[in-house]
Amino acid sequence: MINDKLKIGDRASIIKRFVDEDILIFSELSNDKNPIHLDSNFASKTNFGRKIVHGMLIASLFSGLLGEKLPGKGTIYLGQTITFIKPVFINEEVTASVEIQYIRKDKPIYTLKTICETKLNGIVVDGEAIVKNSIQSG
Amino acid sequence: MINDKLKIGDRASIIKRFVDEDILIFSELSNDKNPIHLDSNFASKTNFGRKIVHGMLIASLFSGLLGEKLPGKGTIYLGQTITFIKPVFINEEVTASVEIQYIRKDKPIYTLKTICETKLNGIVVDGEAIVKNSIQSG
Repeated sequence: MINDKLKIGDRASIIKRFVDEDILIFSELSNDKNPIHLDSNFASKTNFGRKIVHGMLIASLFSGLLGEKLPGKGTIYLGQTITFIKPVFINEEVTASVEIQYIRKDKPIYTLKTICETKLNGIVVDGEAIVKNSIQSG
Repeated sequence: MINDKLKIGDRASIIKRFVDEDILIFSELSNDKNPIHLDSNFASKTNFGRKIVHGMLIASLFSGLLGEKLPGKGTIYLGQTITFIKPVFINEEVTASVEIQYIRKDKPIYTLKTICETKLNGIVVDGEAIVKNSIQSG
């Protein structure tokens, strides 16, 4: 059943600041111990100049927004595209947003624009999610 | 500089089994507390029948492979597409693999096919990563 309460343009967002401990935890979960995320000395010698958050950890905020807010409970992830445009630094505030762009008429399948923004760099992550949600969440 | 040691067809993989504790930790990191991942009773009433791993947590294995193994240290994530085809259940063994499909001639930019497989469902996650790596990792 399609949730008639959801419409094109509906938007949800979350603000998050990833700290060193989050990065350590995610490094264990993903087995990604790239020193660009963990080693200040290494990171200082790269183009970024300091430690950056794992791209997939930033993109995980989309998962939270989709599953918790829009469409919400019962959301099943079908697909996600992600372009990592600029870095997000550790301790830097990042705003993730999802916005409904398309709703299928025949099935409860939604396409959402997914972006992350920082004050320093504007849009840092861009992409699109496709999800299914057959639960009336409202 | 382009790492001449890397070539099309090079492949790396990792086997992982996500347990309840991983799911709890990732739920906090991503703010995704969708009960399909956390609540056995809720999950038993869905089409999946039992709790499933967050799709983005599974896809995070690509981040680990890219950053640790292929191309390895110094990898910068430029983009990732992900299609979630079938679920991965908690405690189920999943194999993530990345394989170089294209190397740019002018820049150290690599396109890799990224898949996850389980014994039960074959290919469960499919996609493509684009990464940059200017460090001679070999």
